Order: sequence, then structure tokens, then C-alpha cells
Amino acid sequence: MIGVAVVGLGRIGRLHAEIFATKVEGAKLVAVCDVVKGVVEEVGSKLGVKPYTDYGELLRDRAVDAVVICTPTFLHAEMIVRAAEEGKHVLCEKPLAVTTEEAERALKSVEKSGVKLQVGYMRRFDQAYSGAKKAIEEGRIGRPLVFISIARDPGPPPGWAADPRKSGGIFLDMLSHDFDMARWLMSSEVRRVYATGGAYLYEELREKGDLDVVNVCLEFESGALGLIHGSRKSAFGYDLRTEVMGSEGTLYVGSHHDPNLAVGTRAGVTYSGVSWFMGRFYDAYVREDEEFVKSIAEDREPLVTGLDGRRAIEIAEAAWRSVREGRPVSLV
Amino acid sequence: MIGVAVVGLGRIGRLHAEIFATKVEGAKLVAVCDVVKGVVEEVGSKLGVKPYTDYGELLRDRAVDAVVICTPTFLHAEMIVRAAEEGKHVLCEKPLAVTTEEAERALKSVEKSGVKLQVGYMRRFDQAYSGAKKAIEEGRIGRPLVFISIARDPGPPPGWAADPRKSGGIFLDMLSHDFDMARWLMSSEVRRVYATGGAYLYEELREKGDLDVVNVCLEFESGALGLIHGSRKSAFGYDLRTEVMGSEGTLYVGSHHDPNLAVGTRAGVTYSGVSWFMGRFYDAYVREDEEFVKSIAEDREPLVTGLDGRRAIEIAEAAWRSVREGRPVSLV
Amino acid sequence: MIGVAVVGLGRIGRLHAEIFATKVEGAKLVAVCDVVKGVVEEVGSKLGVKPYTDYGELLRDRAVDAVVICTPTFLHAEMIVRAAEEGKHVLCEKPLAVTTEEAERALKSVEKSGVKLQVGYMRRFDQAYSGAKKAIEEGRIGRPLVFISIARDPGPPPGWAADPRKSGGIFLDMLSHDFDMARWLMSSEVRRVYATGGAYLYEELREKGDLDVVNVCLEFESGALGLIHGSRKSAFGYDLRTEVMGSEGTLYVGSHHDPNLAVGTRAGVTYSGVSWFMGRFYDAYVREDEEFVKSIAEDREPLVTGLDGRRAIEIAEAAWRSVREGRPVSLV
Amino acid sequence: MIGVAVVGLGRIGRLHAEIFATKVEGAKLVAVCDVVKGVVEEVGSKLGVKPYTDYGELLRDRAVDAVVICTPTFLHAEMIVRAAEEGKHVLCEKPLAVTTEEAERALKSVEKSGVKLQVGYMRRFDQAYSGAKKAIEEGRIGRPLVFISIARDPGPPPGWAADPRKSGGIFLDMLSHDFDMARWLMSSEVRRVYATGGAYLYEELREKGDLDVVNVCLEFESGALGLIHGSRKSAFGYDLRTEVMGSEGTLYVGSHHDPNLAVGTRAGVTYSGVSWFMGRFYDAYVREDEEFVKSIAEDREPLVTGLDGRRAIEIAEAAWRSVREGRPVSLV
Repeated sequence: MIGVAVVGLGRIGRLHAEIFATKVEGAKLVAVCDVVKGVVEEVGSKLGVKPYTDYGELLRDRAVDAVVICTPTFLHAEMIVRAAEEGKHVLCEKPLAVTTEEAERALKSVEKSGVKLQVGYMRRFDQAYSGAKKAIEEGRIGRPLVFISIARDPGPPPGWAADPRKSGGIFLDMLSHDFDMARWLMSSEVRRVYATGGAYLYEELREKGDLDVVNVCLEFESGALGLIHGSRKSAFGYDLRTEVMGSEGTLYVGSHHDPNLAVGTRAGVTYSGVSWFMGRFYDAYVREDEEFVKSIAEDREPLVTGLDGRRAIEIAEAAWRSVREGRPVSLV
Repeated sequence: MIGVAVVGLGRIGRLHAEIFATKVEGAKLVAVCDVVKGVVEEVGSKLGVKPYTDYGELLRDRAVDAVVICTPTFLHAEMIVRAAEEGKHVLCEKPLAVTTEEAERALKSVEKSGVKLQVGYMRRFDQAYSGAKKAIEEGRIGRPLVFISIARDPGPPPGWAADPRKSGGIFLDMLSHDFDMARWLMSSEVRRVYATGGAYLYEELREKGDLDVVNVCLEFESGALGLIHGSRKSAFGYDLRTEVMGSEGTLYVGSHHDPNLAVGTRAGVTYSGVSWFMGRFYDAYVREDEEFVKSIAEDREPLVTGLDGRRAIEIAEAAWRSVREGRPVSLV
Repeated sequence: MIGVAVVGLGRIGRLHAEIFATKVEGAKLVAVCDVVKGVVEEVGSKLGVKPYTDYGELLRDRAVDAVVICTPTFLHAEMIVRAAEEGKHVLCEKPLAVTTEEAERALKSVEKSGVKLQVGYMRRFDQAYSGAKKAIEEGRIGRPLVFISIARDPGPPPGWAADPRKSGGIFLDMLSHDFDMARWLMSSEVRRVYATGGAYLYEELREKGDLDVVNVCLEFESGALGLIHGSRKSAFGYDLRTEVMGSEGTLYVGSHHDPNLAVGTRAGVTYSGVSWFMGRFYDAYVREDEEFVKSIAEDREPLVTGLDGRRAIEIAEAAWRSVREGRPVSLV
Repeated sequence: MIGVAVVGLGRIGRLHAEIFATKVEGAKLVAVCDVVKGVVEEVGSKLGVKPYTDYGELLRDRAVDAVVICTPTFLHAEMIVRAAEEGKHVLCEKPLAVTTEEAERALKSVEKSGVKLQVGYMRRFDQAYSGAKKAIEEGRIGRPLVFISIARDPGPPPGWAADPRKSGGIFLDMLSHDFDMARWLMSSEVRRVYATGGAYLYEELREKGDLDVVNVCLEFESGALGLIHGSRKSAFGYDLRTEVMGSEGTLYVGSHHDPNLAVGTRAGVTYSGVSWFMGRFYDAYVREDEEFVKSIAEDREPLVTGLDGRRAIEIAEAAWRSVREGRPVSLV
């Protein structure tokens, strides 16, 4: 039985805590940690586990075998390093860190200590995205030639995530999911990035130097091509769709509306949008947590490695450079 | 804090147990009960609550304020009576009982003791179905004239539910969900039922006297009309769609496929089916459990009452009579 | 080269005239006929063919090998008889006649003269409906068990068709399309009909004794079951959907919205409805006309025979009787 | 009554000929022209109009007021010049010419003679695309920020169109439709183009210097952004989808499958693809031809002008340069 602690009890942290408390075989939620005392006590009491406000103390708790880091991005690297030093396995929410330098530090520390590190790109565990991966591997669409992803969040990032120095901005905070999908579904590294974008929608993002609508053109080492569009606004809900065109077919993932209710009136037939990512990817989070526990139990690399986490940061950095310089940027 | 115990730890019982353990404000899972010792111990240990194999003992546990009955239908009435006698509130999985006689006994006992009784027609708490109800009440489709429901399960009912004497057969076990939706969405009682059907698919159902494909024609007291089709088989997944046509518009609930993955090849564009009801209605179960706790806390009738449970049984009984006699049957 | 004349230049008549003028190999539009002089002259001049206001004269024109009868239903039988007597082949718009008696007269006359008679159930030539037929014949859904059709016109029937004595009312004028599809897709005759309905929407229909919303329960000789719902109103457009459930799969034909434009705003994602049947079935009309010409050229029975036309009337008559008597009605 | 002649009787030419023969008020098809004698005689006889094999002769026919040019692209400019010199109005199939130089020559000649020139970007007349335009103009999606178009033809271009010197290659022959939509829907000129692409699928295209899969990144003068993806192959049918995201909503045009038939079996729910553009855009062609005739009758600029035709060529040329030079290219 692997003892798991969740650190950072925002909505994602709570979700992981609930999942480990009830659904993951071979694991047991043993502690939760947050700097806000009221929050950690409420969650701890509801789930019947120890509440910590101090990360250092938590790391010294012998019942804790693994930590799930759900704090703001700019804190990830340091917290991974400390966990690794205490011999705790780490499931780190995406992205791995704000910069490749920070990521490198975290990866070295993990390598040195020998703990497992999994990065939280949960789409890999979603039935639709993993079904697409499987279909590609089975050859159902032939040779994959084009990756397209359209990602629109219903609204701007909250709090710290609106500051690109803390979150990495739209290319890292939001689109690194799509960069990870691009690498994974196309089975190829990205070799060249061209990006355009603007801050059209939110004054706060513009002031802090972030963008809210962007387009990214990718070239893969395999010769395949990619297009990614991201927006921090979608008027009616979460709009995430990905497709992979191959020489013999095309995969379509995602839908811009929820099919479950349509109201037909003189105005036409109106569907609701998709509620944000937590409803859409709930099952994926469960499978992600199960995979993490299995990788520990079976002593093997998790499906989403630290290197995957680092690659996503590299692409995001190249996208930022391309926007600034108005030209395509090659990755080394 | 209301102490809740879940009785009967099949898939639905486990689901309720997990939800009460993690998600419902104002309530706390305090015990689980099942006749199979291994099951109750496993679930009790995972969720950190007391395991009971004896229902009587559970009812005497003072930490238990309310029970969630998830046992086979033919046991419901008796278990409700016993819970009511011990002053425990009851959330009873649907249907309320196998016959109106049994239901009447349970309702009387509940009335006498003054406990709350909620029946588990969880579709009422689904965002799509409750959105449809809201749209009707707001007048968006004018006067509701026609209710249509098409319900196909991916496979035959398991174990005891294949015996119509224990489950009430297809009209009760399966279509009472649709009868409940019909009454609720149309805001009118059913006054006449004509049903046809056959046992085309499963030898076991035929032998036990159940049907596997049925059609039901309804007339409502309001003058509106209804059609319900049910099948115990759907080759590619759970196929549940309901529509309400009104004088000014039509509501459509449900979809025969999951929109999230399509594979386009020479054969066409192929979607997956919808996984069975637990994925489709997970959020509805959470809201159902929240409503139950709120009705206790606020000391008021729950949204799905014992009478609602009884009405669904009456319609199912009329449908059975109609099939046997080959003619429309009026409800008194 | 078969010389074709179109009789009755309402919207359907004009459509057939245009199709024969441009698209049908082996045929040539040679004349058009309508009692309204202005209409027949305009269409004749546009298409460069002879205009007739007198049906008798037209029938004596030696360039005319075949007539396409697009007049009101109550005139069909008599016009077929006259055409047959003059040795002209007939493509008669649906339904064949208002009553089975009239239909019988027409069929006898056709049989006697040996001309071809095709009835205009154009859905049989639609790519989606004929694709469904093909899929059934290939065994893709196993044994067909249930036929369901939901048919909603955007508005009430115009002019003469609002009078059930001239049109046969909703069961014949509108739903005979669905009765024809039921027989054709299920490869079985209907043996028993139960129908309910009301005149909820249009005062004029109520006054003339027609209904505007109806439900029909069918039993087939094969043992299969059917449900048909019809409404003379659909707030946002033509809503026609049919499905056939078999032991191994289900076919879905039609859509309640046009997929080609969606507007996503705060209110949700809104699609337009489907424009009425002529846009939806344009290609089917072309193929229907081609089939008619081929059946003449190849001297064989057309795909939709006079008997098919008669069967649809029988089912409609049974539905009317069922509504009046409140009980299921058997067809002999 | 405007006398119309159609020149070039491939599938598009025949379509225009049929439409002018039957559907366009105020116009009359008077002649058809093609270098292949058998073809022109067959079509002429079917439609009852004069057949020409010589374009010069046709232009001298006094019954001809306007010509519809449906010949290969590389012949357009010269044929427009000759028609203009004879004072004939011109509806020219897209694209206007292969190069901007040629286009310029044609435009000057048209200007000098004062005839009308309309370019055949028929999507502007499609109900879905024109509905999108209308929704934007009504402000339903706020300020338009992003244009995305995904265009996949079912197969490679036939005959002469496979030679980029004759057709302008994929960017002009295929994607100029999307460039036209981009300019029209965004109400802004394109200012910068970055394009990537390859010849992955068809040996013939590679040998002749064309590409078969391309991506294009656009920047508009308004500050808005665009992405266009084109492929000369789509395994299951014509896959054309366009979307415009604005500050308050998103428009979606097109669908990757035909909604009218789905076959649900163990393998999932399979839809057919969309048949190629002629079925999808039939109604648009009718309205395009009507608009052409109206612009002549009302003596005004047509909705798609020669300048629109030229702009599309400029963007295509910039895309070709961008691919060759591996950098973004600005339009003057």
C-alpha cells in the first residue's frame, strides 16, 4: 500500500485527493498539505487524513511514500527537488516548471535520488486521446501527416497563472498540453516552431506580458506538420478539439458542444457548451493517478516522464521566441 | 452532520458510498453493509468506515441517521419498513418495490414514522434532463405535447434482475426511469397505456417470462401523448435519448454516440458508443445524494418522493397488463 | 427517347419538370400541363416545351409516352385511369389515392392496359434511406426488430391538403411516407396498428376533422415492432429521423439540424434546422425519375409499385380507425 | 432576358449550363461551347441550345450577352480579354488566372470595356458561409479575431490541374477558396503569410512541383490571425470546415461527415463522409448564377469582383514564396 500525500489544495489538488481516497487500488491517501490552514483542515477532516501546513514536515512523515504536487508552477521545481531528497516519488501537475533551467534542476535531482517522477499531462489517459493514440499505432490512419489542435478555455487563468513569470504564459500554462499531445500522437519531436499571437481580450494579461489568442505552426522531425490554436476565451464553454490526419484517414478528438441537451426553437437547435476540463477529464485524472501508483509498484518509468515535461517547456520557449522575433525558431 | 450508511455494495452501492465519503456537504459516510463479508470489509477498509453484514445491527448503530438501500428490488419494501421503524431516513434505489402492494406498505410505514424517503430516479438530477425540465418550465417549447424516449441498454440485466418476479421485468426494472421522466417532464399523470413487446434476444429472459424489446404508447391526463421504446441490447453501447415536443419547440436529451473520438477511414467516420449509465450519470448521482441530505437538513419532502416511486410501478403494471391482453389499459 | 409530360405545376411538379428537362438520360420533357394558364405558359416557355391546360388533350399528344401526375391526391385515381386508357406510363406522386377503393380502380386499369405505374415514395431513392436498406440486406444489423420514425413538418399542409377528404389526412398525406419506409426497410407487412392523436395546433385542421400530432404503434407480420410519430409543426425546420434496431446493430437516418452552420455564443451552440423536404430529397427525386424511365426502357416493374401505393393507404385507413375506436386494428 | 453561354463543359460547366437552362430568372441559356465536339453536341441537344466548338464564333453570336468560363485556369485570362473585347459579360470560374500578371491584364481589359466580371468563389453564396458572414455583421460573435479553415479534398486534382504551372498549385487551385473566405469573413486584407508543406501522398504532384499537404499562418491588417490547412486527400470524403472566433463567440461552418445515415454496430457508430463539393455547394452555384444575372440587370458590381479574384492570387503567390524561403512573407 503506497501512502500518498497531496500538496496544494486548489480544485486540482482536491480532485487528486478525492481520487486517491476512494478509487486507486494499491494506494491510500495519508495526508494533505496546503499553506492555508482552514482549507487543509476542512479537506483533511472530510477525507479522514492528516493535515499539514508545512511541506517540510509532510516530507518527513514516514507514512508518505509519494507526493502529488498541485501548487503553482513556479514552485514545482523546488518542491520536486526537496521531495526527491527525502526519497518521495512525485506526481507533478503540469507543467513541470516555468523554464528549462528549472526543469533541468528538478530532473537531475530526481535522477540522483532514483524516485519516480510523473508529469500531469492527463490527456494521455483520456479515453478519446488514448483511443486516438491506439488507432494510430494500429495503423488505422496510415502515416500521420498533420496534427491540429484547437484549444479554447472558457475564461482567463485565475490568480498567479495570469502572470507569465509564474505560469510560463499561454504557450506553457495552456498549450503545453497540446505540445505534449503533438509529440505523443505524432511519435516525433518538434523541430521548428512559428508562432503569432496577441493580447486582444484581457487587459490584465496584456499588462503582465502574456497573450490571450495565439497560433502555432509546427514542423516535426518526421517531416509531418502541425497547427495549434489557443484562446483564453470561449463564449459558451471549453472548446478543445484535436485531429490527426494520416495518409489513410483522420482522427477527430473532442467536441465544441455537449451532445446531451438540445433546445430546438425558432432560433434553431441550441446545444450547451462543454463544462470546463475537470468534467471532461475526470476519468483521465483517475487513470493518471492509477498509472502513477502502478509505475511505483512495478518500479518502472511512468507513462509521462520528466523528459516529456521538459520537452513541452522547450517548445513553449521556442514559441515565445518566435512571437518576439517574428520568424520561425528551430529547436536544437 | 448526517451519518449515512450504504446497504448493498454492488456497483451502484459502491458508487453511493464513494460519493458520500468524499463529496456531499453536511453528510458523512459512517458505515457500509453487505451480506458478503469480503466485499463489505474491503469497501469499509478502503473508505475507513464500519462494515456490517447484518442489516438489523446496522439499523441499531446510533451514528447512522440515514440508509441508502442498493439491494435487489424485491428486498426494498421490507428494508424500508425496517429502516422507518428505527427512525432512519431512506434513499432507496429505483424502483421503490416490485408491486404497488409492496410499495403501499413501505409508504405507510414511512408516513407513520415521519422519516424522509427519496427514490433513486437519478435522471432528475442530470444536467441534461433537469435542463430540459427547466426549459419547459420557462416556456421555451410552449405547451408540451409529445414525450418520446428511446432506451437501449448495452446488454441484459445481470443476476437477480433477469427474473421479473424479483425485478418487475423490463417495464419496471428498466423503463420505470422513462415513466418517471414522462410524468416529470410532462407535468401530468399517465392515464392510458398500450404496450407491445417480445423476447427476441435472450433465451434466459424468455424462459423467465420477461421481454427484451418493447414499445409503449402513453396518453397523459393533460391530453398529451407519449412513446417509449426499450431494448435490453444495443450493439455499440448505452443508447438513451428522450425528446419532448411542444407547440413552440422540441427538446432533445441524450446522444447515441460519444462525440469525443471519431476515426475517419475509407469505411466512414466512426464514433464510439456511450459507456453505460454510470459514466453518463455520475454527476447526477452526486447531486441526487446531495439533494437527499438537503431534504433531511431542511426537513422537507425530497424531490423524488415515495409517491413518485409508486406511480412508476403503476405504469409498469399497466404496461404488463396491456401486453398480456393486447389492448390499451387505463390507469385509475 | 421517352417523352415525358408533367401534370400539375405546383412546387413538386416544377421540380419533376426541371429534372426531366436536364438530368434524366433516355428521357425528354416534351410537355407540361396545369389548369392555370399563366403557370403552364411560364414553365413551358422557360423549359422550351409544349404547355397544355387540358389533360385530355395532353394525353392525345403522341410525343407523350409517360405522365408524371403531381395534382392533388383526390384527383390521382381518375387521372391514372385516363392515362392508362391512353396507354401512357404513369409516375404518380404519393399517395396513390385517397381510399383503397379508388386505388383499386386505378390498379385494375393499369393492369388491364399494361402500362407502368410508379408511386412517388422518393425516400426509397434517398442515399441515406437506401443506404439503410442496403445495410440491412447485407446483414449489418442482424435481424431487424424495431422500426421507429419521427416525422415533423415545419408547418401545416397548404390548401387542399388541409382537407382530409381530399388528402387522406395526416396518416395518409404525411405518414404514408413512413408506412412505406416501414414496410420496405423491415421487409414485412404491417399486421396491426394502434394510433393516438389530437388536433392541438391548427384550428383549421381540427375543424376539417384532421389531426396534427399523432403516434402510431405497429406490429409486423415478421413479429417485429414499430413506432411512428408525426407532427404538422416543428418550430425550427423539417425534423425527420428514422431508425431500425436489429439484433446486432441500429441504423439511424436523418438529423434534426443542419450540421453546416453553428453559432456559438453565451446562449450555447446553435444550429439551423433542415430546410423542408425538397432540399433534403432533391437527389432522391432525380434518382426516382431515372428509375421510372429505366423501368419503362427495361420493360419491368418499377421499384415502387402500385401495390406499394395501396398498402400505404391500407395502413393509413387502419390508423384512422384505431384513433376513432380507441383500440388496435388488425389488417387483413 | 440575358442570353448566357457556357464555355468548357467539364462537370462544373455542365452544372452551370443546367442551372441557367432551368433555374435563373431573367436569363436564358442560349449556347454551349467546348473543344470536344461530341460533348458539346450531347449537352447542346439535351438542353436545346446551340453548340459551338469555336470560342471566337460563340463570341460573335448576338444572342450571347454573357459567357460563363469553365475552362482550365491557365486559359482564363486570355478568354476574359477576348470576351471583354466583344462586350460580353463574364462569370469566370475560380481562380481568375494563374498569376497576378495575367489577372492584371484581364482586369484592365474588363475595365476598359465596361462589362461585368464575376469570379466563381461560390462559397460566398452558400447558406452556411453566407449565414456566418451575416452573423459576424450582426455582431453576434463580437470582434472577429481568428479565422481557421481545414480543407481536404477526397482525391488529387484531375488532369491539367495536377500541373501547378496550369493551375497555380494547391495554394491557388484549392486554397484560394479559403483565402477568399478569409478576406471576406474577416473583412480585412491579409498582410503576412507563413506557409509549410510537403508532397507526401501523390508521386505525380511531387514530380510536377506541387504540394499535397500544406499549412498556412495568416496575419490580417486588422490585427486578427488565421490558420489554413489543406490536403489533397481525405480517406472518407470531402472534409471542409471553417471557423471564425470572435471576442464574444465562435462560428463553425461545415462538417466532416454527412449526418443523414449512421450505422451502429459493435465497431461503433459509423457515418458516411460528405460527397464532393458539387453536392455540398449545389445551391450556392444556383445563387451565384442568379447574382451574376442580377448584377448585369441592375448594372452594378457583382458580389465577387475581379479585384477579389486578384487578391486571392496574391495570397497564393505569397504562400508559395514562404514555403520556398522558409520565412514569413509580407504582402505589399
